[in-house]
This record gives sequence, structure tokens and C-alpha cells, in this order.
Amino acid sequence: MTPWHSANIGDSISSIDTPALILDLDAFERNIELMASTLNKKGIRLRAHAKSHKCPEIAKIQIAKGAIGICCQKVSEAAVFVEAGIKDVLVTNQIISPTKVKRLFELARSARMGILVDHPQQVAALLAEARLTGLEIDVYVEVNVGSNRCGVSPDKDAVTLARLVAESAPLRFAGLHCYHGSAQHLRLPAERKTAIQVASKLAKEVRDALVAEGITCPRITGAGTGTFLNECDSGIFDEVQAGSYIFMDRDYSENQLETSDLHFEHALFIQTTVMSYPEPHRAVLDAGLKAFSVDSGMPAVWKRPDLKLTKASDEHGVLAVSDPSRIALGDRLTLIPGHCDPTVNLYDALVCIRNKHVEAIWPISARGALL
Amino acid sequence: MTPWHSANIGDSISSIDTPALILDLDAFERNIELMASTLNKKGIRLRAHAKSHKCPEIAKIQIAKGAIGICCQKVSEAAVFVEAGIKDVLVTNQIISPTKVKRLFELARSARMGILVDHPQQVAALLAEARLTGLEIDVYVEVNVGSNRCGVSPDKDAVTLARLVAESAPLRFAGLHCYHGSAQHLRLPAERKTAIQVASKLAKEVRDALVAEGITCPRITGAGTGTFLNECDSGIFDEVQAGSYIFMDRDYSENQLETSDLHFEHALFIQTTVMSYPEPHRAVLDAGLKAFSVDSGMPAVWKRPDLKLTKASDEHGVLAVSDPSRIALGDRLTLIPGHCDPTVNLYDALVCIRNKHVEAIWPISARGALL
Repeated sequence: MTPWHSANIGDSISSIDTPALILDLDAFERNIELMASTLNKKGIRLRAHAKSHKCPEIAKIQIAKGAIGICCQKVSEAAVFVEAGIKDVLVTNQIISPTKVKRLFELARSARMGILVDHPQQVAALLAEARLTGLEIDVYVEVNVGSNRCGVSPDKDAVTLARLVAESAPLRFAGLHCYHGSAQHLRLPAERKTAIQVASKLAKEVRDALVAEGITCPRITGAGTGTFLNECDSGIFDEVQAGSYIFMDRDYSENQLETSDLHFEHALFIQTTVMSYPEPHRAVLDAGLKAFSVDSGMPAVWKRPDLKLTKASDEHGVLAVSDPSRIALGDRLTLIPGHCDPTVNLYDALVCIRNKHVEAIWPISARGALL
Repeated sequence: MTPWHSANIGDSISSIDTPALILDLDAFERNIELMASTLNKKGIRLRAHAKSHKCPEIAKIQIAKGAIGICCQKVSEAAVFVEAGIKDVLVTNQIISPTKVKRLFELARSARMGILVDHPQQVAALLAEARLTGLEIDVYVEVNVGSNRCGVSPDKDAVTLARLVAESAPLRFAGLHCYHGSAQHLRLPAERKTAIQVASKLAKEVRDALVAEGITCPRITGAGTGTFLNECDSGIFDEVQAGSYIFMDRDYSENQLETSDLHFEHALFIQTTVMSYPEPHRAVLDAGLKAFSVDSGMPAVWKRPDLKLTKASDEHGVLAVSDPSRIALGDRLTLIPGHCDPTVNLYDALVCIRNKHVEAIWPISARGALL
């Protein structure tokens, strides 16, 4: 481990060593408040997605503001949050290996745990461990409502699998997981609305088929930051799993909004330094592929439309400079990550800023929790 | 921190929890041996690039096999290796902040340290600290020989900057750093050869101009895994900085080779599991953007041309399946990373394999060392 950290509490922003992952606490708190008050008015539960932040301090704030619990993508990620005292954790993913199943049930001794299935083999693995331990967990059937990633097809397969779960006590059939991942970044409001209308119709058909068979479907959960208002309005979803709303990234900010949409602010940034300035129209930052993820494109430079990141290598970000009079070697620049989740996963801590000073340092305790 | 690890020493490969970063020790050792014996015959020094592995165990093996030291990209990365006992570390990067300069000189109390400059301000910052501490470090002038990233232009600017360093005792002018990054992945041998011929000619011109002024240029260093034989043959370079040769990634394996080129083997892999198999022609792996970097494209599936990774989200890799009879839920698949360096940076440890068992677990001690 490197012996150094980017900052200490009380430091001024200008003395933070770079690159560093920065959280603007005022913007972050406004985002948290906006989501909480909106969902509260609508009577829809928030199960905050913790894969975005991997940070127990943030999960606790989300729950204090009304979230009923969190979701994670990995059992090992869930372990970090359970250890930190979170009492309701849904792993929004499938697991099949005996090691992971065993660990999931171990966590169920300390918290209400949930998991997804989209195949009878996963149900069998969970049931064996439930019988062995006598512990109960929530099991959701993931339905493919348009993302074409995981999930059973929304037809008789979904009903058959839900029936299998419902008949597999002590597993608890907890409902349907209907997350439309690929709808989150459709740029036009009408595109997102249509995608979620289709997803909601499919979810409703599965639920109705279950009810017709006498199987109660306690909950339909899903949604992300890009579409959750559509799920709220569907009359079908009663829980949303937004995560990125606390941070907002460049990719999300490129979604066009309607006036009725909520405006979440950029709260997550990367503080960088111009470490080389070899030519008037080319400067080089001390942040590259190991300081930000590029899967959703390059970061933007905050409030500097004159600067554009054109290339990233391991530890360099190359800037196209349109006005050389506005930049110098040693300048500090702030980036908005292209995609917040995999960027956060590159850092050990969030440097939390208010009034131009470091107010807190929050460990990203579940960074690298891949298992 | 997650309480679990992927494997323990002695485990069979099939029991490693996934996703996990795997090192095939036999292939790795053959790669190390091939590079060492080749450079030894040619009388060219290897300064192994440790940004690829961030692992002191590997650096020690490289040095035991003849490398004269290592290079790093960050001062904090260097700190990890100096702490582990490495005695000769070149930071192949520029630094400008007082904090980083101070830390670099602090490391010079325990090891021979080097750094790059491409601007007089960097020289001034280093000189002030050298005078304050009385410590000596190696300073290389980075020359832009074609990469168009950092580096002074190979004309009178390079000579002027080298003269400034040479006149700035106790800084030691150590030579020219002439790394042609963008040549490494030119696909055709002739393209790479031409690029390095141009780079070598530029490096020679700067060196000759220095000599004409009475300034000794002790060394010309650079090169990577894609081109180092060209630098060796140039008659100009006397040190190469290859890093990826120990692992090899999918991107490097797509370089076409001549018969005279060396064949390094894939030694670095990601062990994964099929966690969802919802449709005959679509399976989903438990490894996504947080388990591999996609900046150089998707990983390949090792020895399985029937499978192709088409999409990655945070924790999912979507596989196009051409022959459904050859894959099942729970299957374990091995990926070859698209780009080894940022992939290694996602993991805390290398799970080292021989004879189908875990022989060692090597911490990636400089993971996340961004400062």
C-alpha cells in the first residue's frame, strides 16, 4: 500500500494531492434530499444502489433519509455493508457457486438478505443452503424486460420459475426484479418513457399470471437514475434502485430532460494537475486510465469548455487546448467522470469537500469487492 | 475491505472464487527468461516497467534475472517498491507539485531515484529540493520522438533543457528518455520498425547536439514490449523499459510478428464463471468493468473461439454463444485481458498457478497508487 493519502481533514482544496476523487457535499446532500422527498411524496420505496459508491457512510445517509435498505452487485460487497450495520441488502445479481451461496446465507444471520434468480439451478443451490442452515432469504425472479442481459423471458418461463421459488420454503419469493439497464441512457425523454412503458407492461403480465395461479407477488423492483420517474408513474413498480443520482456523471448529464424531470447535480469529481505542457495546444494531466474509467467516454473538464480530453493512457490524460492563454503548467483542473461507478472503484477514499475545505474522508470500503 | 479472498495456497484452480486475476507461473517465467537472455546477448540493459504489475515480488524476480532496476509512473508507486527493497527506481513521468517533489527526494535516501522533465519549471522545483536536502537524483529529459504526449520537441528546446539540467548540480543529468508509446501497438512489423527508426534518428540528433556542446549524455532509455527489439538494433538506445512482456494481453497479441521477433506468451488471465445463461446464444459472466479494463477493447475468451464478449457492464460480461452445446450455467471460463496494466490495477492480488494449483498469492501492493 502506498504510504500517502490525497488529503487530510481541514486541508484547503488547493492542497489536495492529485489525482483525487472529490465529493462536493453540498451538491451530494441536495441530490439525496431531492430523491428522498420526491419518492416520499409518491409513496415509492428507495432501495439505494450501493454499487455506485461502495461506501458505508453514504449508505447510512441514504437510509437516514428514508431509503429502506440498499442493493449491491456482489456478495462480498454486501458483506462490507452488513459489517457496517446495514440491515437490508439485496444482491441484484445471480450466484451459482457453493462458496458464494454459503457466504450469502452467513450474512443472513445479521441482515435481511435478498438475491436474484433466473434459472432453476440457482434456486436449487439456494434451497439446499436454506435447508442446511434454516435461514430465510428473499429471492426475486429477474425478468428480462428489455435489457437483454440476465433475466428469464417474461412469459411462462418467468411464471414457472416464480412458482418454483414460491414452493421452495424456507426461500421467500419476494417478487420480480425488472431492471431495464439499457434504457437508462437513452438520450430522449420519449425514448426512455416508451422503454419503461414496455417494461412495465411485461412486468404486469407476469404478475397477473402469478396472481391467477394464486401466487402472491409481494414486490416489483427495478429502475435506475435515468428512468425511475417512469417506473414510479407505471403503477406497477413499488421500489426503485437508483444509485448514480447521488453523484451524476458526464454520461447521465447527456440525457435530455423534460421540465417535469428532476435535476440532479454533478457532485463527484476528479481533481487533477497539469503535469506537462509541451505545446501550446496540448497539455497533459496526471490522471489517466487508472484514475477514471473510459467505458462511457472521456471525462469532461468542469466549467472549461475550452479544454477537451482527447486521449488517456495509464497515468496521462491528454488535453486539447483551444486557448493557451488560459492554462499553465501546474494548473489544477477538475474532471467530471464519464461513468461514476467504475471510476469510484479505482479509489480508496472519497475526499469530501465543503466551503473549499476537506470536511471528511470517507473510505470506499467495498472497492475491489468482486466476489 | 471485503473479508474474503479468491483463493488460498494449495487450492486447485477449479476452487478459486471468481472473478480472480490469475498468473500462469510457467508462462510468466518463460517470458522473464526470454527477455533476460535476449537483452543479455545484445548487451542492452532492462529497466523493467513496474506499472504493469505493481507487485514487488515480480520486480524482485526481474532484478534477480538481470534487470538493473525498475521504472514506475507515480512517486507513490515508487514508494511501494523502495519500501520493498528495490534500489534503483526511475519515475518515468513529470512532477510539478511541491508535495510530490519532497516525497521523491525522501525516497532518494533509500534508493537511486530518477525522474523526467520536459519544462524548466520542473527542473527548478527539483533543484530547490535537491539544494535543501543535499540529495542527488537522476534527471532525464523526455524528448517527444513521435508519441505526442509529454516531452520537449527534439530540437534546440531539448538541448536547452538538457543544458539547464546539466548545469543544475546536485541534480544529475542522466540522459534522454525517448519512449514512443503510440508505436507499441502498430500492427505491422514494418510500421513499428519505421516509427522507431524515426525516433532513434531524433534521439541521436539531440545527443549529438549535446556532445557538440560538451554535455555528456550518459544514457538513452525508452522502448516497450511492442518495439524494444527495434530500439535494441538502433545503436542509440542502451536501456529498454518493457513491462507488458511478462503478462501479454489481447491487444499486444494482435501485433503481427516477424520470425525474428520474440514470442511472449499469455500469462495473465481472469478466471470467471457463467452466472446466468438466459438464452441459448447469450450467457453472462460474473466479470465486467470492475474486473477488466476495456480501453483497448474487450477481453478474449481463452481457447474458446466459439465465445465472444460483446458487452460489459459494471459486474457483467455478456457472451455471444455460437454453439450452445458447449456451454452451461456454472461453467468456468478464462479471459485474456484486453489491456493488462489497468486490469491489474483493479485487483488486490495475483493468484499464481502451477500444475493446476495455487502456488502463491502475490499482493499487488501498488494498486491504486495514483499520487
